[in-house]
Amino acid sequence: MIRPFEHGGNIYRHAGGRPVLDFSANINPLGLAEGVRNAISSHLDDVIHYPDPDCTALREALSRFYHLPVETIVPGNGAAELLYLYFHHFHFRRVCIPVPAFSEYERAARSAGAEIVYAYLEADKAFQPDLTAIASQVKDADCIVLGNPNNPTGNLIRRQKLISFLERAVQRGQFVIVDESFLDFLDDGPDFTVADFASQSGQVFVIHSLTKFYALPGLRLGFGIAPEAVIQGLMEQTDVWHVNTLAQTAGIEALAETAYQKASRALVREERDWMSRMLSCIPGVTICQPSVNFILCHIRQTGLTATVLAGHMQEQGILIRDCSNYPGLDSYYIRLAVRSREENEYVVETIKACLKNKS
Amino acid sequence: MIRPFEHGGNIYRHAGGRPVLDFSANINPLGLAEGVRNAISSHLDDVIHYPDPDCTALREALSRFYHLPVETIVPGNGAAELLYLYFHHFHFRRVCIPVPAFSEYERAARSAGAEIVYAYLEADKAFQPDLTAIASQVKDADCIVLGNPNNPTGNLIRRQKLISFLERAVQRGQFVIVDESFLDFLDDGPDFTVADFASQSGQVFVIHSLTKFYALPGLRLGFGIAPEAVIQGLMEQTDVWHVNTLAQTAGIEALAETAYQKASRALVREERDWMSRMLSCIPGVTICQPSVNFILCHIRQTGLTATVLAGHMQEQGILIRDCSNYPGLDSYYIRLAVRSREENEYVVETIKACLKNKS
Repeated sequence: MIRPFEHGGNIYRHAGGRPVLDFSANINPLGLAEGVRNAISSHLDDVIHYPDPDCTALREALSRFYHLPVETIVPGNGAAELLYLYFHHFHFRRVCIPVPAFSEYERAARSAGAEIVYAYLEADKAFQPDLTAIASQVKDADCIVLGNPNNPTGNLIRRQKLISFLERAVQRGQFVIVDESFLDFLDDGPDFTVADFASQSGQVFVIHSLTKFYALPGLRLGFGIAPEAVIQGLMEQTDVWHVNTLAQTAGIEALAETAYQKASRALVREERDWMSRMLSCIPGVTICQPSVNFILCHIRQTGLTATVLAGHMQEQGILIRDCSNYPGLDSYYIRLAVRSREENEYVVETIKACLKNKS
Repeated sequence: MIRPFEHGGNIYRHAGGRPVLDFSANINPLGLAEGVRNAISSHLDDVIHYPDPDCTALREALSRFYHLPVETIVPGNGAAELLYLYFHHFHFRRVCIPVPAFSEYERAARSAGAEIVYAYLEADKAFQPDLTAIASQVKDADCIVLGNPNNPTGNLIRRQKLISFLERAVQRGQFVIVDESFLDFLDDGPDFTVADFASQSGQVFVIHSLTKFYALPGLRLGFGIAPEAVIQGLMEQTDVWHVNTLAQTAGIEALAETAYQKASRALVREERDWMSRMLSCIPGVTICQPSVNFILCHIRQTGLTATVLAGHMQEQGILIRDCSNYPGLDSYYIRLAVRSREENEYVVETIKACLKNKS
């Protein structure tokens, strides 16, 4: 059984020493870019020095790549760290989270003493967030957290729609965190980002992981976007060396890997579509239309719970995300990462075999 | 001029592209152990997976090495992170810091809203902490932070004396953080540690950096010791993947490097003593008797301030720690790390030359 707040990708808990094929973590199937690996490798000896507390070179690289003023960028020990810093800095009383959502939003808000209000996204509307409905529901919350695209549902909100929502929230005195951690997987990411808005509004914070798209989750790296005064406040909540040297190095190199970026987007687009078709053909399985590198599937009609199917899959050496610990989802959802064709074929076949054997 | 809360070791700010000899950061002069370097290098590809959120293998290694129950050990993204988690968890009203001290104690306490009370260690008593005096001064503080050995003074407090102090503080309802980050440099570390006491008292927290002794500051790694219930509370203040994969790997290997550990202690003992003698012979320079790998020097009688001398040294490619931003020190203190004989000779000669040239 999956524990509250437990995530996918915990190969240490589940492997028991055996090699596993991990479909439970949403990591770029191309793995580490060669140039990034070389950069880490050739900078190993830099670890005898403290990291640059100002992350100067990394922030300049991020500024150029995302066209954002350097003083509005705050790197973090993963994007997740930035959530904790934000909540510890602002100490919101009441935080609204449209669910299902990445569970660190809730865990981070609670750590700083916030009460959590869920806005339930509706399964029969494919979890599409209705921003007007959310706005009317959350009037007594001082902060709202949105994933765009949302994890685990994959839903996307168009920039113009989101900007209107942000403007109204700001007018009401509310804060909004927008998590754009999976946006790099899209060809048309610029049609969705609100980072430029966040760089100018003291009430909007965009967080962005670099660990998913660049396959660096073990190294930890993300960044946030907010006006300079907010960034200063966030930096006071953590020690000055929180972003390790190798992560800074890897991040700079990753942003320069244009060919890898293009190849990753092409692969994910193709495999996402192929896998969606294949999964949809399995009797009893329905999928939420994916946008990036993961697919949420409902398996109630198969007669198996997510926990039971995940257990069977694990016996076959495959980790899938049992989503039964997500508020807002019933016990019949699994999430699959998109990987290489060969691996995707294998996971689809294994699911079919598990479903056949149970009957 | 050194900024408030600025640390030594910022080679990025000061180097300007030139190679520097860094005496401003207190890092093991032997550098990265060969085995640790190999372990990091051979585990580079692990960064495509999330770190083990439970740090299981690292905690087990720390438990065996330091003879502490595994459930009382909490690894951190550097020891500094643990300070922030502790203060954010307990939200002390008033924190007493005997100064001069490592400035992250104050910065971390303030980040969680604490008021700071300094207990001034006396220069004419060689900054030796008078625990009885401190105890009577700090009655209205709910937390006290002690470095043992203290950075930048090098003062050590014997275990029995410290335990008596802790017992009285606990009785009064006060919390105490003891920073043992430099204890590994001592041959007789066990005569000073109070980690066993911390593992059983909900009001005492021992923090311990692994980045200084194992020369890993860029990778970030430390741990804290407290009873399991406190550890759980601290873990809720940060994201589950806060200790990166390579740091976990490096830490496990570092603890197995027995020969490196012995050689490091022997080198630091010999060079600390040699350098102390040499520095004491420079007219106008007086030293605080060092215990580990750094030496605090008073240079008032030379007629130069620390900032001016540090500026001259930097022109020669050497970073030294200008201590004028330490509360509790006047403008005439510098701190020097202990490095190899050749480098130590060079720094001593360069200081002499700087002093000669100014007159």
